[in-house]
Amino acid sequence: MNPSPERQSAHRPLRAVDIIIKKRDGQILSTEEINYFIKGYTTGEIPDYQASALLMAILLQGMTDQESTDLTMAMAYSGEVLDLSPIIGNAVDKHSTGGVGDKTTLVVEPLVAACGLKVAKMSGRGLGFSGGTLDKLESIPGYRVNLTQKEFLAQVARIGIVLSGQSADLAPADGKLYALRDVTGTVPSIPLIASSIMSKKIAAGAQTIVLDVKTGNGAFMQTMEDARKLAELMVSIGRLSGRKVVALLSDMNQPLGCAVGNALETAEAIQTLKGAGPRDFREHCLEAASYLLLSGGKVTTLEAARQMAEAALENGTAYEKFRLLVQAQGGDLRVVDDPSLLPQAACIRTVNALQAGWIAGIHARTIGETVILLGGGRAKKTDSIDYAVGVVVHIKVGDRIEAGQPLVTIHARSEVDIQLAEQQILSAISWSDRPTEALPLFYGVVQ
Amino acid sequence: MNPSPERQSAHRPLRAVDIIIKKRDGQILSTEEINYFIKGYTTGEIPDYQASALLMAILLQGMTDQESTDLTMAMAYSGEVLDLSPIIGNAVDKHSTGGVGDKTTLVVEPLVAACGLKVAKMSGRGLGFSGGTLDKLESIPGYRVNLTQKEFLAQVARIGIVLSGQSADLAPADGKLYALRDVTGTVPSIPLIASSIMSKKIAAGAQTIVLDVKTGNGAFMQTMEDARKLAELMVSIGRLSGRKVVALLSDMNQPLGCAVGNALETAEAIQTLKGAGPRDFREHCLEAASYLLLSGGKVTTLEAARQMAEAALENGTAYEKFRLLVQAQGGDLRVVDDPSLLPQAACIRTVNALQAGWIAGIHARTIGETVILLGGGRAKKTDSIDYAVGVVVHIKVGDRIEAGQPLVTIHARSEVDIQLAEQQILSAISWSDRPTEALPLFYGVVQ
Repeated sequence: MNPSPERQSAHRPLRAVDIIIKKRDGQILSTEEINYFIKGYTTGEIPDYQASALLMAILLQGMTDQESTDLTMAMAYSGEVLDLSPIIGNAVDKHSTGGVGDKTTLVVEPLVAACGLKVAKMSGRGLGFSGGTLDKLESIPGYRVNLTQKEFLAQVARIGIVLSGQSADLAPADGKLYALRDVTGTVPSIPLIASSIMSKKIAAGAQTIVLDVKTGNGAFMQTMEDARKLAELMVSIGRLSGRKVVALLSDMNQPLGCAVGNALETAEAIQTLKGAGPRDFREHCLEAASYLLLSGGKVTTLEAARQMAEAALENGTAYEKFRLLVQAQGGDLRVVDDPSLLPQAACIRTVNALQAGWIAGIHARTIGETVILLGGGRAKKTDSIDYAVGVVVHIKVGDRIEAGQPLVTIHARSEVDIQLAEQQILSAISWSDRPTEALPLFYGVVQ
Repeated sequence: MNPSPERQSAHRPLRAVDIIIKKRDGQILSTEEINYFIKGYTTGEIPDYQASALLMAILLQGMTDQESTDLTMAMAYSGEVLDLSPIIGNAVDKHSTGGVGDKTTLVVEPLVAACGLKVAKMSGRGLGFSGGTLDKLESIPGYRVNLTQKEFLAQVARIGIVLSGQSADLAPADGKLYALRDVTGTVPSIPLIASSIMSKKIAAGAQTIVLDVKTGNGAFMQTMEDARKLAELMVSIGRLSGRKVVALLSDMNQPLGCAVGNALETAEAIQTLKGAGPRDFREHCLEAASYLLLSGGKVTTLEAARQMAEAALENGTAYEKFRLLVQAQGGDLRVVDDPSLLPQAACIRTVNALQAGWIAGIHARTIGETVILLGGGRAKKTDSIDYAVGVVVHIKVGDRIEAGQPLVTIHARSEVDIQLAEQQILSAISWSDRPTEALPLFYGVVQ
């Protein structure tokens, strides 16, 4: 039969297999054990096959808040940790768990920078139905997202805002584990998701973090219960690691704003920065910005933060900050001033309602997947992106629609694509012959 | 956040990650999915890190009898499957789940061969506290365990018995998974243990299998509940795969027989083949042999099988068969005829009782580990073995012992080793000042 190295002794040096067995049996790992495993995995001494066994054991057996914090810190300190304190006293960062049409960063960061908060933000690319900030920014010709660390720090010191990709040295253990989880069925674990997010934020130098945890069919957390658990765990990791964390629970049962697709979202963000933009998206941005301003100590009440944020949108300082940002990172300012110069799709068609009624649902995930189908997202990491394509959704859940009224506008490379997308989008919209309720933007705040 | 390839479609080709996710979520894998995974893992297309994630998911989520059977057959047919039918109509095999002092194969196989059953048996080496048949046979100078398949088949055709190592081609998937389980904390899973055992037996051509499933502190199944589950699952796998399987549940709370250590066990097996030997060990062998003879169709009742087996021990035909076997595989027959010519340890000491009383326990695992300490076993696979060292235990649970009576004889390489072993062995023996009950040999039969 199968002999096994099952037994552990207090005097024996740490071994990866014993740590796996301990978690497999539902026990709590010590800080020392977690550090040993993550360090060994980062250097390559512990192979992928032991890491994936541990990940599956964590997914099925869970982790305490303290274990999740230890994992976060081990991953954060697996490489360089950015020290922003010489430039920014209390570095405030924002993170969204991702969704469909979520171009919040493009508005909120210039907005709070315009209010005096220094913004040194690293973002990611889109994968699957969820878009990524870097792809949206790159739809502006010339915009550089691959700043060196030196350039990154110099820019925030000079103009108070920088929006770039992650430098390779930050949280390498998280990068390695993230790739492994993707191919071993170990993605949907709340402790693993929370520690992945938090480790990157901590490695990037954040002292205060405002999280936008989305829930719904267009989010990774599909249920409110899971979203709340994730938010609570990240707030707890913040407390246990000496960081301040606030988590907003927000809706992702329909796309945020109207535009889904990189250039279309950038255009919508620019509109919003100019004081216009879809009502729901503007409201979402103001709420997130208010929490950032309050957490960052710019104001002492949420009401004051809100007033400050609204003013920055209305008096043009937020938009000016965005122009400064684009200019600093090499982007074409003509495009910012005239978003019609952004990449344009060859075929554009608006689909109108064939019937009258109330909108009962707009399946966000299906909309996101339609944009992948059009070429505007990635099914796998190596896919290239067409910035021009996408969908503009003109309706919201709760709206009363008359026959002939525009539902969506599809931006595609070909007629064939338009037809495919139209079918898929129409299947994503559900109707009611009685009034339906609008969806809330936020479900609560965890702090 | 972390995008994931979570969703499955009926039309999508099989992917390893989807199979992992299915098992992670506690669903039942199809025959096709199990075949796909095992085939891909055997060829190397599916990497170790996906296999270890699946193994952990199987360990924590379990498998149905049908899944275990599918896994067994996929592993059995991952390489060559021996066809013994031209030589042996109904090939009968025996397998012990391993224990301390378990030299049963050395007696039972010659015994049933002497009764006319053809025996074509592949055995393994010892690892950890549990010894292995090949190591015991190799304590006979010259005995070859690395027969080619041609030699193996020719020998069973010629003399009706062969006892050798496993040829490299049999159940390669099991070999690969076995090694992976050892380092990923995925050993103690009843479906994985059962399918590992059964796949090797089926690949080795067995049509009928008599299993000796041991339970107790010196066995891999420490509880009766686990041993019974393992036995029931293997019997079920047999039924679902068209093989006949009988499982004996036997005790391993004290060493089987007296000798523990390779040459010492070989000597004890030879004694037993000559009609002597420890009472418990002889009885264990007769019982196992009876089930083999009955399963192999040599007799129609267990009583008749028992009479036939006893006769073979008493009339010398079992011993003669063993001599034939050793001779055929190149072993030194002088050693068989005079076991005092087997490798002898430099230091031999008998430890006597300091007190009177009843024996309440002899911790088999500790005895097995003492033999590793003496150099007679392997802590890891690459360790070499000293055939001469070991322990002879003169007592059984339930015995009344007087002060000064011999408890154990230690065979070691040095005085220092003797002292270390003595301490450890004395700690393994527990006493009572009131009569204790003897342990049963068997707890039942599953078929």
